Amino acid sequence: MTDFVFGVDVGGTSTKVGLVDREGTVHGENRISTAGHADPADFVAALAETFEAARAAAGDPKVLGIGIGAPNANPFRGTIEQAPNLPWKGTVELCRMVTEAIGVPSFLTNDANAAALGEKIYGGGKGMTNLMVVTLGTGVGSGFVVGDQLMHGHTGFAGELGHVTVAPKGVAPGRVCGCGRIDCLETYSSVTGHVRTAQELLARGLESSLQGQDVHGEAIHQAALNGDALALECYRITGTILGRALANTVAITSPEAVFLFGGLAGSGDLILDPTLAALEASMLPIFRGVRLEISQLQDRNAAILGSGALAFHQLEQGA
Amino acid sequence: MTDFVFGVDVGGTSTKVGLVDREGTVHGENRISTAGHADPADFVAALAETFEAARAAAGDPKVLGIGIGAPNANPFRGTIEQAPNLPWKGTVELCRMVTEAIGVPSFLTNDANAAALGEKIYGGGKGMTNLMVVTLGTGVGSGFVVGDQLMHGHTGFAGELGHVTVAPKGVAPGRVCGCGRIDCLETYSSVTGHVRTAQELLARGLESSLQGQDVHGEAIHQAALNGDALALECYRITGTILGRALANTVAITSPEAVFLFGGLAGSGDLILDPTLAALEASMLPIFRGVRLEISQLQDRNAAILGSGALAFHQLEQGA
Repeated sequence: MTDFVFGVDVGGTSTKVGLVDREGTVHGENRISTAGHADPADFVAALAETFEAARAAAGDPKVLGIGIGAPNANPFRGTIEQAPNLPWKGTVELCRMVTEAIGVPSFLTNDANAAALGEKIYGGGKGMTNLMVVTLGTGVGSGFVVGDQLMHGHTGFAGELGHVTVAPKGVAPGRVCGCGRIDCLETYSSVTGHVRTAQELLARGLESSLQGQDVHGEAIHQAALNGDALALECYRITGTILGRALANTVAITSPEAVFLFGGLAGSGDLILDPTLAALEASMLPIFRGVRLEISQLQDRNAAILGSGALAFHQLEQGA
Repeated sequence: MTDFVFGVDVGGTSTKVGLVDREGTVHGENRISTAGHADPADFVAALAETFEAARAAAGDPKVLGIGIGAPNANPFRGTIEQAPNLPWKGTVELCRMVTEAIGVPSFLTNDANAAALGEKIYGGGKGMTNLMVVTLGTGVGSGFVVGDQLMHGHTGFAGELGHVTVAPKGVAPGRVCGCGRIDCLETYSSVTGHVRTAQELLARGLESSLQGQDVHGEAIHQAALNGDALALECYRITGTILGRALANTVAITSPEAVFLFGGLAGSGDLILDPTLAALEASMLPIFRGVRLEISQLQDRNAAILGSGALAFHQLEQGA
């Protein structure tokens, strides 16, 4: 009999769900609205309904647990706290509510931690006890598996790689971050930061097919694929700053591999090559065996798989 | 009946040993020569002799385990590997040899990890499950307790905080590190780096009681206690660079507290105040509750206590 868990990825607009088995197949994938359920109790009721539908469609299997990835998750309390991009104010005891409504143990963590477990259980990190996943999207996030456990830290918010401060190379320092501080890594190496770098290079008046265009991540990607020198330089800068920050992170946590995931990771070697070059150039020799790879969940149901992996991992830890 | 372990701190010149109880009292403290035993087997024989003498002096108690702190320790294999400052070449299977000679389980880790466990069991970190200790001596080292476990990483060498690269403030960048790289934290915030900063400030011709003197860590300390402006500025620079590096480390690992230990930590508030100011100024708001303190083992038998703590910790983990 196949073991199943229910993976739930809470996003600001919609929540993705699906039953996940140990081989990483997602069954009965579905979405429910997050934004449309201003009352968390209504959201949980909709979640329970979707859960039953997915279970019925799969032939009523036993479901061992529910894993939830969400922004502003407190993994110790199973709560979502002060989430600016969700419709729920204050503290929501999501795990308690879900467990009560569905009658199955539930577990909660943030998206980057779920991605780290997803990589470990379903991706390139199989069999690894120390790894990190870096998410390169609107911001930069990271999740760490340390000694076969998620690294939560004292606050539950360990892994804020996007908010380490960096000394940029190739572009001017002094970028203001959404957190109010200056020169956080995500002002350079998120998709947003990558676009800011393109805009800075364009403002210098360099020749490029991007001049006069609406610059966004995919436009830079296409231009780079077409050999546009400015777009290629933009990847070189974004990757170099990222690689140098990763070298410092590796010196502290010493993972077996670092996986890049999310928007920018979709550019493959364009981002991987300059990041790897800077990582290797900046790294203490004893750490030079560390692998840098694009996440193997990059083009799969990563969010649901990560949440499912959380459930399997926590159930095993508790066992 | 009191529980005892045997704490062993292997240094380049001599090795400190002693029986340690759960309250942190060291009994039968002793030293044996490291440098004088070119053959590891002779060293282990001398260690066994000292162990029996300490045990006899304490009334022949049962000893539960042996904890060993040593440079270039491989905690996974219990070996010391390619240690440049020890007389032993290649790989030494120290744990296996010690366990066979003395008949008690033995455990090995590097000095900074032992310090982290010492702080957790005997110092200011009692009851904490996430903390870090930073050793500020000839170099900069660090040990992390993450989720109640030592963070070893994949290589066993996690915690190389001394070799994260930094952008210095107040002094010129470009310092060459012993590792061959440029601008590692320890070129600025070790005792050695602190002295280099004093020399740089003196070379500017600034007025100071240190002008024309042989500058070393204790001379800077004394000058600062006497209100010497250059010495105080030197602490400000050393602490600011350290505090900024700690802010980035806290963003990744989120400890409950950071403890400063070793040579520079002996300067107390002179180093603590500028480090804390930079840490708080550079820190993401969600981590602002983190404590920064001087190690409570600073003026105690820290090395032996740390090694003893390792033995108690590993025995409990195995139980």
